[in-house]
Parts: sequence; structure tokens; C-alpha cells
Amino acid sequence: MTGVSRRALFGMAGAGVALAGAGVATGVGIDRLGEGSPAHAEPSTVDFHGEHQAGIVTPTQQNLHFAALDVTTKDVGKLRELLRTWTAAARRMTAGQEVVADGAVGGAAQAPPGDTGEALDLPPGDLTLTIGFGPSLFDQRFGLAAKRPPQLVDLPLFPKDKLDPARSGGDLCIQACANDPQVAVHAVRNLVRLGFGVTEVRWSQLGFGRSSSTSRAQQTPRNLFGFKDGTNNVKSEDTDVLREQVWAQSGDGQAWMAGGTYLVARRIRMHVETWDRETLDGQEQIVGRTKGTGAPLGQTGEFDQVDLDVGGAGGVPLIAPDAHVRLASHQTLNGARILRRGYNFVDGSDGVGHLEAGLFFLAFNRDTRKQYIPMQQALSAKDAMMEYVQHTGSAHFAVPPGLTPTSNWGDGLFT
Amino acid sequence: MTGVSRRALFGMAGAGVALAGAGVATGVGIDRLGEGSPAHAEPSTVDFHGEHQAGIVTPTQQNLHFAALDVTTKDVGKLRELLRTWTAAARRMTAGQEVVADGAVGGAAQAPPGDTGEALDLPPGDLTLTIGFGPSLFDQRFGLAAKRPPQLVDLPLFPKDKLDPARSGGDLCIQACANDPQVAVHAVRNLVRLGFGVTEVRWSQLGFGRSSSTSRAQQTPRNLFGFKDGTNNVKSEDTDVLREQVWAQSGDGQAWMAGGTYLVARRIRMHVETWDRETLDGQEQIVGRTKGTGAPLGQTGEFDQVDLDVGGAGGVPLIAPDAHVRLASHQTLNGARILRRGYNFVDGSDGVGHLEAGLFFLAFNRDTRKQYIPMQQALSAKDAMMEYVQHTGSAHFAVPPGLTPTSNWGDGLFT
Repeated sequence: MTGVSRRALFGMAGAGVALAGAGVATGVGIDRLGEGSPAHAEPSTVDFHGEHQAGIVTPTQQNLHFAALDVTTKDVGKLRELLRTWTAAARRMTAGQEVVADGAVGGAAQAPPGDTGEALDLPPGDLTLTIGFGPSLFDQRFGLAAKRPPQLVDLPLFPKDKLDPARSGGDLCIQACANDPQVAVHAVRNLVRLGFGVTEVRWSQLGFGRSSSTSRAQQTPRNLFGFKDGTNNVKSEDTDVLREQVWAQSGDGQAWMAGGTYLVARRIRMHVETWDRETLDGQEQIVGRTKGTGAPLGQTGEFDQVDLDVGGAGGVPLIAPDAHVRLASHQTLNGARILRRGYNFVDGSDGVGHLEAGLFFLAFNRDTRKQYIPMQQALSAKDAMMEYVQHTGSAHFAVPPGLTPTSNWGDGLFT
Repeated sequence: MTGVSRRALFGMAGAGVALAGAGVATGVGIDRLGEGSPAHAEPSTVDFHGEHQAGIVTPTQQNLHFAALDVTTKDVGKLRELLRTWTAAARRMTAGQEVVADGAVGGAAQAPPGDTGEALDLPPGDLTLTIGFGPSLFDQRFGLAAKRPPQLVDLPLFPKDKLDPARSGGDLCIQACANDPQVAVHAVRNLVRLGFGVTEVRWSQLGFGRSSSTSRAQQTPRNLFGFKDGTNNVKSEDTDVLREQVWAQSGDGQAWMAGGTYLVARRIRMHVETWDRETLDGQEQIVGRTKGTGAPLGQTGEFDQVDLDVGGAGGVPLIAPDAHVRLASHQTLNGARILRRGYNFVDGSDGVGHLEAGLFFLAFNRDTRKQYIPMQQALSAKDAMMEYVQHTGSAHFAVPPGLTPTSNWGDGLFT
């Protein structure tokens, strides 16, 4: 199907239906660019529907566009209607279709096009779209206070936080992940556009080089400190752990959230120039793993179990008391784990000669009060790595459960 | 070679030499990530050496990291030495090697690693590194005033420019293009690091979704207005046009620049939200092309020749007097053309509810005084598109000619 655009293709009857997958990348060839586009070599889609929203345990795609939005209307009916409109649009775009039928060029010449068009020739790129609701959505404006899940707390200020309000919070979030940044950007932009008059962008973040794996089929990527990141992440294959640590259960407080989860987003500036002046030994002590293989100190393979007690010369533990891997370990945290889905970022430079680089940390957990918060309290107070990082943005969202072909984002809020 | 890292691979003797190509992507398989990494399906390298620097007519890669740097030393010897160091490092990285031998993990444990490591497991990704020298490098500091090419003028302020000094200018620039953003980021970061004490980053820009093609083998990409962009671009196959319009010739003023070219960088904010409210017809009138196929108005195919006189009803030219394609046409500009190599960008949001999106415009020409400047004067004064864009950053660089395996960036400056 080389050269067939998504517009042309989806003009054919029923193609959207034929693409319905089973919650994982289907690998079906929908469209492909020609030469010089290795990123598009294996176009495929991820099913929008399922017990949980896609984009959480989905094998992490290469690129991220994350947007936090504020609701600007006071009319709850408009908000509800927008969530329905967004659902229909997301259902189409994740299947590789334009945001609406007859989108970029098929509509009336005297009307604004229904799709912005920059993804016309691009394959679906495993696009996933995931929505979340921030604590502020449950304030007095929309009568949703009684629907607020107890897990959706206002995050505390952690030691050493230096949060920028312009990079924090938000009534809603949209997480777009894809294997082409233009596909992710197109999706967010078109949802934002549909929200004109109802929502506006509060902040937005691009990311690349997925800084964790969510499937055992994926190689562990490296973060901008040069270390493999997320070796011990909860993976899509760990269904028991997911049930216990990631997915909200029906008895968890708000029935409408069953099958959902809670998303913590943290923009973590990494002072890479300072890190780069640290010795290899110093870096490995801080992380608690070797830089080459990613093996825990005292072990040989990346996936060898972390042994926090293994001793070196004189019996002193090889993994220092303030090593990142020790403080972030579920062995230290009463068994608490999180599912990470972060991305690296470089947002230009900081005006004083350095790259504005870091990790856009995204984590999903069943109860942020019992998982992310105690973990981050330990890390921000003691982690040797804190000398090299600074949390500059923060947000928390309730991520509702997955959808059927006839349900909508927000159904749980309004029923 | 699945799973073989660049570090492990290049520990093997002579691998770097075996990779030397012929100025184009070689397609040799060096390394590849496993599943879930379609971007790395066809790893390949671009030869660093040649008559011209790579990264100009090289088929445009998917991702960009561009950095402008200021020289912070007054010691011209240190600058010269840095340019040599950078050359050696660029020679290695573009071949898929670490920035220095025994880089990220092979060196002494008590020394900072020689390579920052985040590209350890990644294939070379067709990385190109291209250097340029800004007008300010030729001021009184380094005794280089007599070497300044007459073409390297200070760009004038164009009508409607709204330039941010923090996104403009620079003594030096490094353009890194690759098919993986992490590879491009890694390369710039490591060169910046080598420049510690000699240079610092003035500004830096990431880009994606190449917004032009530089080879007839590439499909024309779309910009964030949703239109195919760069259809009439000068292509690598147009050797006569390149000689006339892009490559500095020996009689052009400064002999050391023969085989080089001049780079204009412009950060163009695109007010996509406003654009998206324009009708399809209005958008096509502004551009002068149809949105779907990219055909010039009045023609049927993307690559049909633009006919500025073809009339519609009543004989009025279909391509309006203020259409972008008319004003940017070499037919209007006394034959002047440029080679474009821009990228789309989204730098978060603008703080008032919109995406900070646009086009990072990169153009190469033989004489900016006769090509880019008159073109931009016409566009900024008359182009209907100016209502939707704003130039927020600007820089100009002399891009020296290509290298041999024993020459260095900056040789022409100091001999």
C-alpha cells in the first residue's frame, strides 16, 4: 500500500473496522512512507478499546506529546459534550484515521478543514491517547466534588522541589504516545482544537527516547545520565503486580475508577553538565548499578535481583545507603511499586550556557498516597541523585478505566 | 548483530574504517535494537568526509538538534584546539562510535567517563554533524576579521520580525541530524561538553518531521499548517543548481570558503490555532497550492511546474499576488533559490493557552545577500502567510567546506 495516504485509505469502506486490534500493536500495514523514513517501516495500530485505557501498559512508543489543559467554561454540559467529542476523535486517530471524516481536504472549501492535515501521509505509528482528570476538576465548578477519588490527593511539596506553576497542575491531561512525534503532536493539537472555548492548554511537553520499558519484549532504554532506566519497572506481563499495584479495584473508593489508575507527572530537570563531571565510579555509586550492563552493584546481569545487603570489602554494602536503586526499591518501600512510562526531553537551553535537559517522569499507580508519595519522600530526602536533578513540574491525574466501542471518556464522572 | 552495542562493536578492531561510506547513507547494519523500535530498523551511517560537509544535501533525516554557541575564551589557540577536538569527535560519532575510545564505561573508574553514554545501545541513525561560524566570530577577539566572508553579513531586521535575542545569533553552530532524536541530542551534548571552558550553549532547538526534502527519493513532508512543504526545494540531484545557488565557489571572496555555503536559521512561530480557523479555500489561496496533493493552483500534480500566470474565472491569476508560492518563487526572485532543510517544532505551550509550535527554518545558499535576504524581504512585506507566522529567532553562519580524513573544522580560519 505504499503511497496510499490515510485519507485515501480511510475513504474506503470499513477500513477502520478492519483495523480493530486486540489491545496490542497489530503490525498491520496501513500505510508507509517511501525511502528515507525508517521510522515508518512497520506501521501498526494499538486498539483504543479494552478493560484499561491504552497507553499505560502498551509497550512504550518512541515519542510523547503530553498536554495538561484547564477547563475555561463553567458549563458542565459543554465539558461532558467535549469528552464525548474527544472520545470519537481519539477512536478515529488511534486507528490511523483523520480526526473527523472528510477532514483535512475532503470538506467544504468555504469551511475550516476538520483535520489539521500534518499527519495525512503518515502511518498510525502505534498512537495511543490516554486521558486523565486532575484534582482541580473536582472543585466547585462542575459539581463533581462527590466523584473525587480519595487517591487523587493534591501532591505535597517534596523537599528540594522547585516547581514552576506554569508547568504544573491542570484540570485534564492528554497523553499521546506514538512512534512518530508528528503523529503524537497532530493528535494533541486536534483534540485541543476541538476543545476551543471549553479548554485551553495549560502546559505541554514533548519527549523522546522512552526512558523505561513497559514490556519484557523491549530493551531497557537509557536516560540522559547514560544509565539504563526502568530495569525493575512493572511490565505488562506482570498481571498480578498490575492488579495489586497499578489498577484501581472496585473496592478502592470510587466505583467509577475501577480499572483505572493514577498518573503522576513530574518534569525532572537533569543537570547533565554537572553529572558529566562525576567519575564513573561516583555515578555508579549514586545509581547503585553499573553503567554498562545495568547490573545491580555486586551482580553481573541487568536483570539479576537487586541484593541490598551484598557486601564489598569489609562487609560494607556495595549499594550505598543513599543509592537511588536502594531508596526506590520496593524492598525498602514496604513492597510499593509503580509503573513508569517516562521520556527524555531537551527543551532548548537554560539561558546560562546549559542544555535544558531531563526526564519527563510519568508513573501510574493504584494509590498515589501509598506508592508514589512515600517513594518520592524517601528519594527527595535522601537520594544522592538529588544533587543532580530538580523537579520543576508536577501534576496528578485520575486516569479512568478503558472504553468499549460505545462508551466515552468521562462516562464515570457524569453517571 | 542484534543486541551488540556500539561500545562492544567498536571494541572490535577496524570496525570504524569498514564503515567509511561514499557521502550517502550506506545502509550497512551496524547495530539494531530489538522489538518495539521501528525507528532503528535500518541503521546506517553517512560519511563525515567529502567535498562538502555532510548534513546539507544529505537526504534529510527525521530529527534535528541544533545548537548555537558562544566562545567564552579570548585565547584563539584554545578555540583552534577545540575545533580539532570536535572534528575528531564528530568523525567518530557519525561512524556510530562513542565520542572517544573507551568512552562511557571503558575508562578509569576514578575519572569522569569520556562519553555520556545515552547512545550506547543505539545505532548510528544516519547522524550528520555540520558546523558553522557566525558573524560575531570574526570580531576583534580572535584576529579573524580579515577572514570574514563578505556574504556573512549581519542579517537585517525584516518587517514583522519579533526576534528574541536569547534565540538568535551565536559565534558557532552545530547542526546534528539523525533518525533518532537521542542520537542527535547525544552528539550535541558531547561536543558541548568537550567545549567546557571554551564555549557555552547560547540557544538550542529540537526539531522533528523534517519539513523539506533534500532528495528526489524522499516524499515531501508536511509542515504544521498541514501543507506539503519544500516541493520545489533544491535537491541533492540538482548538481548544476547546487553549484550555482548553494556552494561557495573559489572566486566568491574568501578562498577558504570554497565548497562551503551560508546557513540561515530562523525560528518561525506558527500561530496554528489561528490558521486552523481559516477556511480550506483561504489556506490554499495563502499558500498557492492545494492542500491534498500539493499541486500548484491550476495544476494537477505536486511536481507540476508552478504557472504564476494561469488564470481562473475572468482571467484573474489563480495564484494570488500575495500567495506564498508566488513570492517565494525563483521566477519572482530573479532566479534566486535556496536549499531548505527545516524541521517542525513544538516547544511546549506559550502560557496563554496555545501550543508554542512552528517551523525551525534552515536554509543554505551561496550568497545570503542575493538569495535569502531579498526573498525574505519580499515575504515579510507581502506574504499573506505572515498573518499566521512570526519570526522569533534568527542566525547566520558561514558553513566551511567538507573535510578529508586528516583535515579539521576551522582549518580555513587559521591558515
